[in-house]
Amino acid sequence: MPNKLLGKLIVFEGSEGVGKTTQLNRLFEWLQHCDTLKQLQAKDCIAGVRITRQPGGTELGVRLRQLLLTETLEHPIEDTAELLLYAADRAQHVAEVIRPQLEAGFVVLCDRYTDSTVAYQGYGRGLNLSLIDRLNEIATGGLQSDVTFWLRLDVAVGLARTQQRGTVDRIEQNQLDFHLRVKQGFESLAQTDSSRIVTIEADNDEAAIATEIQQIVQKRLLQWYRPHLTRF
Amino acid sequence: MPNKLLGKLIVFEGSEGVGKTTQLNRLFEWLQHCDTLKQLQAKDCIAGVRITRQPGGTELGVRLRQLLLTETLEHPIEDTAELLLYAADRAQHVAEVIRPQLEAGFVVLCDRYTDSTVAYQGYGRGLNLSLIDRLNEIATGGLQSDVTFWLRLDVAVGLARTQQRGTVDRIEQNQLDFHLRVKQGFESLAQTDSSRIVTIEADNDEAAIATEIQQIVQKRLLQWYRPHLTRF
Repeated sequence: MPNKLLGKLIVFEGSEGVGKTTQLNRLFEWLQHCDTLKQLQAKDCIAGVRITRQPGGTELGVRLRQLLLTETLEHPIEDTAELLLYAADRAQHVAEVIRPQLEAGFVVLCDRYTDSTVAYQGYGRGLNLSLIDRLNEIATGGLQSDVTFWLRLDVAVGLARTQQRGTVDRIEQNQLDFHLRVKQGFESLAQTDSSRIVTIEADNDEAAIATEIQQIVQKRLLQWYRPHLTRF
Repeated sequence: MPNKLLGKLIVFEGSEGVGKTTQLNRLFEWLQHCDTLKQLQAKDCIAGVRITRQPGGTELGVRLRQLLLTETLEHPIEDTAELLLYAADRAQHVAEVIRPQLEAGFVVLCDRYTDSTVAYQGYGRGLNLSLIDRLNEIATGGLQSDVTFWLRLDVAVGLARTQQRGTVDRIEQNQLDFHLRVKQGFESLAQTDSSRIVTIEADNDEAAIATEIQQIVQKRLLQWYRPHLTRF
């Protein structure tokens, strides 16, 4: 069920190279010109749109993101420590950024959120799933996304895209079977929680995907804010 | 109950300025000349003695320690994020350092461990105690200290000492009532788990405290390694 705060949390999830960040930016641009949003802003119902990401959406998070993704430590980060660092980043991010922005009436677009931890640390690394659920609950204080777009793509295609980009981080360097398990994790989440998680076929044309996402967001905005939109 | 690994984990706990690090170093020096230890080393039963600390006992931990204790972020670290960062430091430290050293037969002297998190984040910050127990369990894989010395001292005396030192970190800057709650946390832990936690009155003379700790360690070594010591 959607959160009871004025703003809404829209998340983009998926494996490496599926185009999350591109689609998040396209949705952000589209929302700047979206009539429904303009109406809601005119009624002081929505304050605007914000973009953020996990890990790295706070000053602390930027430092943790470096440790998690780009720095080479002599001894690699242990799986459990990695899980706890993602949880720490999330706790800080929700308390410092996401919750205040939702309370202030912003639509928040977030690049990765709780489902990534289930997929990567749970399915990918094989850590205990109920432990991960508990940590997600602790870190977010129970704040779920209002809608999550899972961009589904063949793992090999996604990895080939990241290699073309030339910036392969620590997570992306993992073996193919790790990435297959991660995709299976997202698949399972999308099946279990199909009202919150919308599956988007990410091998389509970039513009077509953007349009599909815009149409869904348009529909959701009307659902979420119906009482405000009909009150003329 | 003591762990089943060859080595033993000896922890020093207490509030700010109680003399943990001083006493840890004194015990380390004493152990270099301890006859019981020499016997155990001669029998290849004990490999030696190691010193370490939390947070900061690994390369990752040093980075987390900076974030937790000395760096000034524009937005302070949230309580839950802080708790999770300490847990991440501990998970890495146990897996990378403490457990391998215990398995290799070292006596490990550690400056702070799980009880600090109960006292500071639980009693001090008021975070949920059963959550903290669960995180400690996850981070350590259930590895408890074999003996913990809690150095008990009047809070005001301890704080005055740290101020004389001239290096007041983020934790030490907290209000007096925070430190009183922390002390109460250690008090409660020491009462509940009196076989593992030994209370040491830290307002005694430094050398007298060192001797008291040495006598207890001597006794524990004989208990822990009795089968090895009698097998001539």
